[in-house]
Amino acid sequence: MADLSLSTGLPETSPDVWKHEHVLDVDDFSRDEIDLVHEVADAMGEILTREVKKVPTLRGKTVVTMFYEASTRTRASFELAAKNLSADTVNLDASKSSVTKGESFIDSLRTIQALGADVIIIRHSHSGAPYLASRSVHAHIVNAGDGWHAHPSQSLLDTYTIRKHLGTLEDKKIAIVGDILHSRVAHSNLWGMSKLGAQIVLCGPQTLLPLDTEGFISRSGLSGVTVEPVIEKALKDADIVMALRLQLERQQAGLLPTIREYVQRYAITAERLRLAKPNALLLHPGPVNEGIELSPEVAYGAQSVIQEQVTNGVAIRMALLYLVCGRKHN
Amino acid sequence: MADLSLSTGLPETSPDVWKHEHVLDVDDFSRDEIDLVHEVADAMGEILTREVKKVPTLRGKTVVTMFYEASTRTRASFELAAKNLSADTVNLDASKSSVTKGESFIDSLRTIQALGADVIIIRHSHSGAPYLASRSVHAHIVNAGDGWHAHPSQSLLDTYTIRKHLGTLEDKKIAIVGDILHSRVAHSNLWGMSKLGAQIVLCGPQTLLPLDTEGFISRSGLSGVTVEPVIEKALKDADIVMALRLQLERQQAGLLPTIREYVQRYAITAERLRLAKPNALLLHPGPVNEGIELSPEVAYGAQSVIQEQVTNGVAIRMALLYLVCGRKHN
Amino acid sequence: MADLSLSTGLPETSPDVWKHEHVLDVDDFSRDEIDLVHEVADAMGEILTREVKKVPTLRGKTVVTMFYEASTRTRASFELAAKNLSADTVNLDASKSSVTKGESFIDSLRTIQALGADVIIIRHSHSGAPYLASRSVHAHIVNAGDGWHAHPSQSLLDTYTIRKHLGTLEDKKIAIVGDILHSRVAHSNLWGMSKLGAQIVLCGPQTLLPLDTEGFISRSGLSGVTVEPVIEKALKDADIVMALRLQLERQQAGLLPTIREYVQRYAITAERLRLAKPNALLLHPGPVNEGIELSPEVAYGAQSVIQEQVTNGVAIRMALLYLVCGRKHN
Repeated sequence: MADLSLSTGLPETSPDVWKHEHVLDVDDFSRDEIDLVHEVADAMGEILTREVKKVPTLRGKTVVTMFYEASTRTRASFELAAKNLSADTVNLDASKSSVTKGESFIDSLRTIQALGADVIIIRHSHSGAPYLASRSVHAHIVNAGDGWHAHPSQSLLDTYTIRKHLGTLEDKKIAIVGDILHSRVAHSNLWGMSKLGAQIVLCGPQTLLPLDTEGFISRSGLSGVTVEPVIEKALKDADIVMALRLQLERQQAGLLPTIREYVQRYAITAERLRLAKPNALLLHPGPVNEGIELSPEVAYGAQSVIQEQVTNGVAIRMALLYLVCGRKHN
Repeated sequence: MADLSLSTGLPETSPDVWKHEHVLDVDDFSRDEIDLVHEVADAMGEILTREVKKVPTLRGKTVVTMFYEASTRTRASFELAAKNLSADTVNLDASKSSVTKGESFIDSLRTIQALGADVIIIRHSHSGAPYLASRSVHAHIVNAGDGWHAHPSQSLLDTYTIRKHLGTLEDKKIAIVGDILHSRVAHSNLWGMSKLGAQIVLCGPQTLLPLDTEGFISRSGLSGVTVEPVIEKALKDADIVMALRLQLERQQAGLLPTIREYVQRYAITAERLRLAKPNALLLHPGPVNEGIELSPEVAYGAQSVIQEQVTNGVAIRMALLYLVCGRKHN
Repeated sequence: MADLSLSTGLPETSPDVWKHEHVLDVDDFSRDEIDLVHEVADAMGEILTREVKKVPTLRGKTVVTMFYEASTRTRASFELAAKNLSADTVNLDASKSSVTKGESFIDSLRTIQALGADVIIIRHSHSGAPYLASRSVHAHIVNAGDGWHAHPSQSLLDTYTIRKHLGTLEDKKIAIVGDILHSRVAHSNLWGMSKLGAQIVLCGPQTLLPLDTEGFISRSGLSGVTVEPVIEKALKDADIVMALRLQLERQQAGLLPTIREYVQRYAITAERLRLAKPNALLLHPGPVNEGIELSPEVAYGAQSVIQEQVTNGVAIRMALLYLVCGRKHN
């Protein structure tokens, strides 16, 4: 029944399009795969509007969240996505878990697999940890954020949210503002948004941009990505403005002169947002440091789609869980 | 099926009686609403005696517990109530949650709502927080205890427990003994018990009674509430004795001379309990500081209904969840 | 349906064989009861291989884990076992739980029972705590490890894993190596393996063996248990080698000269494992301190069944939950 309701929303070719056993980053997603995730998310979003927002697609499957960094928000999003699909969920708070005492990361993964996990959702402070995981166990690995490296479900929900409003990212100007250097959200979006044809402008303090950003861009083969340190120029005629969360401890690390200066130079205010196109969308991965990255009037203003991002995140994660382990012949 | 089994236990007029989108306190409950909660709890209690104690009433609904103060007991009671009704549950330990880092209370609520919560159960150390929540989101808010202010599900389970034994609270003498000032249990019960016609006597150390209790009583329009500092007089001929939990840190705060003196003057002992009516009921919201509020012989004696309160609490919370979001045309 | 699929795997006499309301240790299990647990585990293991690894056997039952010592691994194993049988689960981290603040262990148990728990799974640092629990409440108690005393589900999964490979434990030589004194795994296995006819050799540093081991063995009526301090002799021609986890804090306590000396004298290396029979099985209860109890080459070698132990643990715990509370006439 659930499969019927889902498959009606899917293109005929979907089983051939999807190539992934794991979701590690969007850099190796084809454009067709991103399109497929978004189409499946449409079907999932429809389920979320039902009186009974639950389908039996993953009944009898076990989804384990294994978070080495605390993140109630992302953990709850995956947990609810799994529950909406009728999977059983187990949360391991690996930051203080005895699973990990005296045991290597790989041993912990093998144990979780041996307990019966079909999908292991990993957040880890070390870049690359989910890749190591995917080579160590047969369970499907979903990267819920690894170090400064990648956060693929966030990128997929960001591009999905934009598409729902603007139909396409093709030739849209997207200004990503803030701590680009340490942001896995920005890194995954460089890949995801670029594949969908967007023109991306990166803007932030010199100390929070990657060294040799332009060299990185040209080496990686990314198209349509530029750097613009002056926020007024970055926002000019943008279709989408994405502010990044500022980790306040960056100041102690000497990477920021003062928070006040950051706010003066980079905060998205109503005045600055008016430089973008009329009705430009405002995104933020949350949680917002109110008054720092965004002024309250824009955070809750008509152009903000921050709450929609959260809701779309559940649909995107349902789509990813379905695609990695919910299909009949998978 | 579940709805059938429930509706048979409900009065015909029930849909018109219930007026609440949220459960914030019992002060604005009509007598008919309290009666309705108790009637639905009867139906829920019947479910709890079944071989399979589970009905599909809230299938596909999401209940999130968001506790800013630790309370395994109350959290587990709500969690089990939700699970018995087949809701999905997510527990956010907000006291240490990253949901709340750098994020305002209202932003956290909006995020939880955007993740798909149908009901948000809140415990918060600030009086009034659930009221603010109810004005900020569309999800149904249930107050699981806010500061010194209110604990409506506790009052509803207390009055329910009394009714199951005595049939009515009308003209019953109820002695509430202990730290009245800081007790949200006492405050909600003043409203709940008073609406049901009880005669309430408050008894405790002068420093743990509200300043100008009698002024408060007359201003609030509560009827049948008096203060009696001498415990022997307070207990005399009582139908019900309710001891409150003593927060032991009150002594450090200088509000109590010594715990020993509290015990000497206010502990409910077998001898003191004999001053009440034969078979008077003994209630305590738990957890009991054994030997302080109650002597062990009475805590586990024939008159104690403390364990029943716990079981009735699950039925009452099932009833509240059903009434705020489980009915067909809600 | 689930019951059918299970009962086909059970001997006709099973209802009469099983005598336990609780699972406290294997010392009072009859040989027939151990056989029955293993037979039911076979049926459960079959369920775990299905596309939908879930049966409705415990639908509407509530299983509460109450762990006074952290153990994500064992807790997750019981939690998944319960979920695979469709029970509702609630996890109480009793090591920091407010259930336990100012409340006695027995009061906490009574509260959990009053909340509706059908099974309470207890891990406790005090030997005997689950026995006290079983005398205090009507809910079924399962001991998930108490102090140095017992860990019955671990013993049942260990003997089950051996049987799946070797068919029987009868007259098999089993070397148990390491910290025998503090190991509840070893203690439960003395009973479980001995009842199944094994010849057990205990090997470890003198300070980590019980005082007067031989007196204990003769007084307890255990048969087939001996002590052999020299590891080469202990491993000689063994059918099964079981290494125990070394609590590294034993060294601070002065019970071990140095970890290096422990490794030199007791670590199971490839060279030492060759002293055992060809294809001898290597077990470890996990988590492994790699390079201490086991060298990495044997931990992941062809003779290691450590991952299988984890998977079999889920089947064994499903069997125990079924036997204590899942059968029709229980």
